Formats: sequence, C-alpha cells, structure tokens
Amino acid sequence: MGWAIALHGGAGDISLSLPAERRLPREAALHHCLQLGVAALKAQKHPLDVVELVVRELENHPNFNAGKGSVLTSRGTVEMEACIMDGNSKKCGAVSGLTTVVNAISLARLVMDNTPHIYLGFDGAEAFAREQGVETVDSSHFITPENIERLKQAKEADRVQMDYTQPIQKDEKSESPTGNGDSQIGTVGCVAVDKNGNLATATSTGGFVNKMVGRIGDTPIIGAGTYANNLCAVSATGKGETIIRGTVARDVAALMEYKGLSLKEAAAYVVECNPRGDVGLVAVSAKGEVTMPFNTTGMFRACATEDGYSEVGIWPSVQD
Amino acid sequence: MGWAIALHGGAGDISLSLPAERRLPREAALHHCLQLGVAALKAQKHPLDVVELVVRELENHPNFNAGKGSVLTSRGTVEMEACIMDGNSKKCGAVSGLTTVVNAISLARLVMDNTPHIYLGFDGAEAFAREQGVETVDSSHFITPENIERLKQAKEADRVQMDYTQPIQKDEKSESPTGNGDSQIGTVGCVAVDKNGNLATATSTGGFVNKMVGRIGDTPIIGAGTYANNLCAVSATGKGETIIRGTVARDVAALMEYKGLSLKEAAAYVVECNPRGDVGLVAVSAKGEVTMPFNTTGMFRACATEDGYSEVGIWPSVQD
Repeated sequence: MGWAIALHGGAGDISLSLPAERRLPREAALHHCLQLGVAALKAQKHPLDVVELVVRELENHPNFNAGKGSVLTSRGTVEMEACIMDGNSKKCGAVSGLTTVVNAISLARLVMDNTPHIYLGFDGAEAFAREQGVETVDSSHFITPENIERLKQAKEADRVQMDYTQPIQKDEKSESPTGNGDSQIGTVGCVAVDKNGNLATATSTGGFVNKMVGRIGDTPIIGAGTYANNLCAVSATGKGETIIRGTVARDVAALMEYKGLSLKEAAAYVVECNPRGDVGLVAVSAKGEVTMPFNTTGMFRACATEDGYSEVGIWPSVQD
Repeated sequence: MGWAIALHGGAGDISLSLPAERRLPREAALHHCLQLGVAALKAQKHPLDVVELVVRELENHPNFNAGKGSVLTSRGTVEMEACIMDGNSKKCGAVSGLTTVVNAISLARLVMDNTPHIYLGFDGAEAFAREQGVETVDSSHFITPENIERLKQAKEADRVQMDYTQPIQKDEKSESPTGNGDSQIGTVGCVAVDKNGNLATATSTGGFVNKMVGRIGDTPIIGAGTYANNLCAVSATGKGETIIRGTVARDVAALMEYKGLSLKEAAAYVVECNPRGDVGLVAVSAKGEVTMPFNTTGMFRACATEDGYSEVGIWPSVQD
C-alpha cells in the first residue's frame, strides 16, 4: 500500500527516429507533470484533485492533443472533450464539444460536482461553462500552426488520422512543421491513488485530426477511455472507436472484479485482446500498483510510486 | 438455439393504479411492436434490422419517451439520443442532441454504416442527418401537450424527474393531462437474436424531463444503456446516471464472459447490485434465452422466443 501515479500523453505509431527537438520537450513536460502530481500526493491532496491538476497542466502544453494543442475537425475548428471519475463513490463528470473552455477537465469536474447529471455536450456544456465562470478564450487560442498543417495533410490524404499516426509521407522535402513526428501528439490522461486507496482518473483530448464535426470519442465515455472504481483507476488512449467497442477502461476493472486478475494481468489482457496498434492505457490499483501497457509503437508516459520507482518513457522499456 | 426478441418502453415508478386508459394504449403498442419484430425475425431479417425496425415504431409512438413523445429540456426543447450495436462485429453507432430527426435510431445506424466514427452529437449529428437525407421535421413536431405539462410540473417541483417518476402530487384536483401516471413515459429499446446466434441491440430516448440543455444520458453510451457482443445483447432503461456509473449493459456481458454466469444470472446480478428503483433491462443471449429484470416498480416490456413463449407486462410477473 502506498501512493502511485501514472500519466500519458497519447499512444500511437511514434517513430523510433523521432528527432530530439520533438522528443525532449514532451519528455520534459511528462517529467514536469509527474513531479507536480507526486508533490500533490505527498501533500496529501485527494487523488481527484491530483488528476485534475496534472491533466490541466497537460492541457496547457501545446505539444499534446488536448486544450491548447487540440487537433482540428474537418472544418478547422476545435471540439475538446474530457472526463473525470472518483473510484470509491463512482461519481464522475464528462464534457464534449467544447470550443472556448481553457481546461476541459475542470469543466468535467464541475459537471460532476454541481449538476445532477454526469455528461454535458456542445452548446449546453459551453453555456454551463459560462454559468460557472470558468476561464474561456476565443476558440482561435487553441489552434496552433502545427495543427493547421496537420489538418491540411490529413485532408490531402483524405483520411482520418488517429493520434500519433505518421505524418503523410511526401516524396518532396519534409520541411513542414509536421514532418518527423510532430504530428504525433496525443490525448492526455492521469490516474492516481493515495496511501488510503482512494482512486481517481482523468482524461482529456482534442480527438482525431480531420474528425467530423460532432464526433465524440472514447475519452468522455465512462468505461471506454476513462473509468475508476474501488479496485483501480484507468485512462486509455489510442484509436477512440476501438476503445469504445472494447469498453477498455471498464474491462480492466471488470477482469479484476469478476475474474480475480491482478491489475497488471487485467491491463495486459485488455491491451492484448484489442487490435494491435490501437490501444494504450495507464492504470493504478487501490494497493498502489501501477501499469502502463500499450500495443502501439509507443506511448508517451510517466509514473511514480511511493516506494521510489519512477519512469518516463515513450517506446517499450527493456524489461517489457 | 432459436430466435428471441425483447423490448421495453422504460422502467420506473409506475403506479399499480395506472388507469386503463393510460395502460391499454401502451400495452397495445408493446404488443404491436413485438409482433412486428417477431414477423421480421421469422422472415429471416438480420437482428440489426429487426431492432432498428422495432425501435423506429416505438419512437413513432407518442406515449413513449423517444422520437415523437420525447420529454423536454429545461428550456422546453427536445434533444433526442439513440444507439445501435451489432453483437458479432461490435460495430455500433450513436447520436445525441437531435432536434429535428424523426427516427434517431436510424441516424445512429447511418453513423455506424457510413462514417469512420461511432458517435456524433448535436449540430454535427444534425448536419450529418441532412447530408444523409433522413426524414426531418420542425422540432415542434416532437413536442406534445403532455410533455409541456410534465415540464411545467417538474419546474414547479424544481427537480429533475427520471423516466416514470410519479407526477408531482398536488392537493388540488388532478385533472391535468399528466395526472394518474401519464408522466410515466420511458426510454425505448429492443434486443434480438436470430437462430444463427446473431445478436443486436437498439435504444432511443428523449432523456429526462427538465434535463439541462446538452445533457447526455446512458442510452448512447456503449456499455451503459446499450451493448452487444457475441454472447448477448442488452438495452437498459431507468436513471441514466446510475446506468452510466454501473456500466450496466457491458456488465451483463462481462459477467457472462469473465465469470461464466448465464444470461439470467448475469442480468439479475447487475440489476440487484444497482440502486433500487433505478434500473431495468431487456437482454437476449446467443442461445436464444431472454430476460427482462428490473428493480423499479415496473417496466413496460414484451418478449417472445422461437419455442412459443411470449409475454407483455408492466409490473413484476407472478413467477418473478
């Protein structure tokens, strides 16, 4: 028993040749966010507050696909979504279709705390944001030049890109800002458990590059991208439609609850059973265990536990 | 092995003194929709087509809370949602926030068949409806005088009503159109299996009376209100927030898959474990079994199996 925390910045086909100038800022952000979460847990903050804090920080980082840095819909707009859940009470909140809210995860928390509902979407969620007085900005704030270029490339390829798919290969010079792995930005999430076994999870995303307007992914779906109960907390990332079909986050918990698997066994089984290249997740158990399996090329991830273990990684570890 | 079908028109606190003039039209509708589904199964239609057909018919019936008859948001508007899922392929489609689409379930089917996504919401879903050319009408078409009165009563009581909660008791005469159980209208759903074990589920709803604009419930959430795999197909109804937290539909399947329970055992366990008064569901298995448990006062429901069993009911059966 002890505290534990894990976070991710998305899973996908992350090239092993990701250049240092693109890799290092993300690793630094993961490290920074991990330290933020660890300090909060050490200061005895509730895991629900810890995961919200960490995901806010990840949302504010333009190199991840959530908040500032969200990828664009087929119409060049942003539609952000997020979800937060408390393990013991199973209280949860979710939002979709946000266009002006700086920190989607905090609005999800307010839906959980201040409404009789779990999930608000689109105009209703935006109206609720104004009613609650959360920070909002013009939608253009979220749109980075890199994401305009990513959308252009996706439209040229006439396909929907998932988090981290390779930028479209061109024979011409690859000097575009999205070349060499900069299109590889992903959903963010964090799970945490304190020494008393209180569990929480939070996930936030901009969705898919070139997604249809109105598309809802796995992130805000309780049981798909995000789930916590009194056994574990899970945040998933990858191809949203696969994660919805696979009820990935709930299945990790269900395998522990109904089949008696350990956290690591349950998480490994779920990732193994889903299509290769589609799924990654981070999870912690009430006992303070942590696991971060993925069946993609890589997953931006970090974790730490009270007994001193800590890891920041992108590709499979040597011991995996 | 054989075909089986079950459908519901919502679960909740349905008064045992529901007057005949309010009970009989609903029983007749359940019976009619059941026959429609049975005939389609006998004609070897795929279960996915059968559940869509049956739910369309239920949506068109003004005494159920879906399509025509949808309850109203706090602003007096309709926001309909629906979900459909095929068991073997786990292909699925969902929609939320519809305001003009006559049959939400058929739009969910088109999301499944004609987009790379699973779930579209609000303006994007409405735009997709127009692109696909499905039947739409002015939003006022869906708003019945009864639902205007229900909203008025709910606002007077300053609370959110769940499907089927009793109309607010007044000391004055109860001559309002919502008196004596007419506020007791509910979400609709259908599950079906053919003799080859192909499974499908569909659910459609108008949500809660007096819900916040933008509120998303359990119906469109894969694993909550709606789920099918190669073992069973489930459609749930009741208090949406409870069903989301309980991942009700997925849990029926997960208990079969991970704990080896039978359909009846799994469904009974899930309903038993959720708060009393909140949950009902209909489910069929690949073997052609059917079950319709609920922990509410009643559930409008009907079922039939190839071996000749058939039932249309509201309150617990004698054998339950």
